[in-house]
Amino acid sequence: MEQQAVLKEYLDFAITLARDAGAIIKGALDARMKGGQANILLKYDNPSDLVTETDQAVEKFIKERLAATYPAHKFIGEETMAAGTETYFTSDPTWIVDPIDGTTNFVHGYPFVAVSIGLTIGKVPVLGVVYNPLLDELYSAAQGLGSFLNLTTPLPLFQPPLPLTNLSQCLIATEAGSDRSSGVLDKKVDAIHAMLRRINDNGAEAHSVRATGSAALNMCSVAKGCVDVYWEVGCWEWDVTAAMVILQEAGGLVLSGGTERDESPANIFGRKYLAIRAAGDRTSQLAIAHQMWDVLPSIDAPRDKVPGGFEP
Amino acid sequence: MEQQAVLKEYLDFAITLARDAGAIIKGALDARMKGGQANILLKYDNPSDLVTETDQAVEKFIKERLAATYPAHKFIGEETMAAGTETYFTSDPTWIVDPIDGTTNFVHGYPFVAVSIGLTIGKVPVLGVVYNPLLDELYSAAQGLGSFLNLTTPLPLFQPPLPLTNLSQCLIATEAGSDRSSGVLDKKVDAIHAMLRRINDNGAEAHSVRATGSAALNMCSVAKGCVDVYWEVGCWEWDVTAAMVILQEAGGLVLSGGTERDESPANIFGRKYLAIRAAGDRTSQLAIAHQMWDVLPSIDAPRDKVPGGFEP
Repeated sequence: MEQQAVLKEYLDFAITLARDAGAIIKGALDARMKGGQANILLKYDNPSDLVTETDQAVEKFIKERLAATYPAHKFIGEETMAAGTETYFTSDPTWIVDPIDGTTNFVHGYPFVAVSIGLTIGKVPVLGVVYNPLLDELYSAAQGLGSFLNLTTPLPLFQPPLPLTNLSQCLIATEAGSDRSSGVLDKKVDAIHAMLRRINDNGAEAHSVRATGSAALNMCSVAKGCVDVYWEVGCWEWDVTAAMVILQEAGGLVLSGGTERDESPANIFGRKYLAIRAAGDRTSQLAIAHQMWDVLPSIDAPRDKVPGGFEP
Repeated sequence: MEQQAVLKEYLDFAITLARDAGAIIKGALDARMKGGQANILLKYDNPSDLVTETDQAVEKFIKERLAATYPAHKFIGEETMAAGTETYFTSDPTWIVDPIDGTTNFVHGYPFVAVSIGLTIGKVPVLGVVYNPLLDELYSAAQGLGSFLNLTTPLPLFQPPLPLTNLSQCLIATEAGSDRSSGVLDKKVDAIHAMLRRINDNGAEAHSVRATGSAALNMCSVAKGCVDVYWEVGCWEWDVTAAMVILQEAGGLVLSGGTERDESPANIFGRKYLAIRAAGDRTSQLAIAHQMWDVLPSIDAPRDKVPGGFEP
């Protein structure tokens, strides 16, 4: 088969897989609402426990179906990594999966929860499916095949009247994140402050800042066009690989969210991401990237050390 | 008719009105996506203009239908107030309306946009309808009649396992807001920082912070149970009156978001709001309120000076 026909087959498979995984996530939330809740009481004070059960179940489901369908393909998943499984990143087709993106939201029932399924071939992200089973929104894309919401609505859905050239015209998504060490949190809060401050106070005076708690869905909102810029430091390859393809196919750009002002595409293992659509013109996207870099701090979030993840 | 039968009639009327107004809002966004966009180009740099057109059209629609149906009732609306119409707050039935809550979102197509229709009788908020036409979510409540999502699903939808007693268990909604003067923005950013900081760094270490850009929908999220606390300073009576009834009927509490530690219900004209559900136990709600007041700054946002709005 030609490359595009192969990708189309993988995409159809990943869409069905994401919907089935989403049904498990929604089922787990529904059961929690209806059932006795005493059993999750202790976990509420330590939400990572609660999430881990459903996370692990969903990742196991995805991993097993992938292995049964494409036994030669490789797999990188959040829970598999957390369990310490040795992983290498190779040129083989590699599925990069977050079973539940938006863990805190899952605990609280806040409706920004998604399963994220990305695929790299030759180490390049070429396919992504992000499905939010609570809002029933499915974002999907593959290289050269376009980017869609719920299969038929092409992205972007919204478009500003002209390529935006200034941060002061932009709506920005970002997150406080889970790393609350003062060295990280203080800088993130300073950066948000600088995005919002008036220009004559040395700020960018963006239209505003939004925070949903899901990296994958924030990046999909950029693809949709309802957010112009998304910046986050500290998330992982499984949070962003799928959404990067969805955004790129929608005319967006994903660069490093670090301070090195690198205009080449972000490495998925870099843990610092700056996603921009802003009407899809590269010149204006880069103008906005440099305005973001003007206000972004240097934050310590070491890249993921998966062997093969960075070229020598 | 008895009071509850009267309220039920008003509620049915307001629900139909909100759905019809929502259709106008959605129609305006759809038209903008499909039509030529050059005509809104200039407005994009000054989003208040774009919003004002649809805002004014929707408020006029609501105001006229209210006047035709209940000619003796009074009206307070954002656009009417902005136009400088002299308004008095009396004990008569008074409809308090925001035609579009989430103005920046409306400009960008970010799907947290709502029409908010509240009613006071004897100066007490007794009825509220908040409708988001983009997600097709309708929140409605009247005093003694309960609080519902899409008419049939009782709120809260989600419930933590026990009344939460500590901010460190809470998901908090808040907003940077539109007042970017350093005296206001700096304090809001400091407050967000304090909510997130580790407890041993003198922070509250909340689960996280979410920002959607709509006061009415943030407060409805507390009623839904997917957010435990919502704090905002600087919004207005039309942003919160409807949602306050929705939250109160769902077992929540709305206090002043100022620093006076006032445990009585918030005055709708106070412009500082602290909404808490956290499983609906008043003792734990007040415990959380005091923990919020511990980290909240004193911010200058003068109460609305509508005559009659504050008792002497």
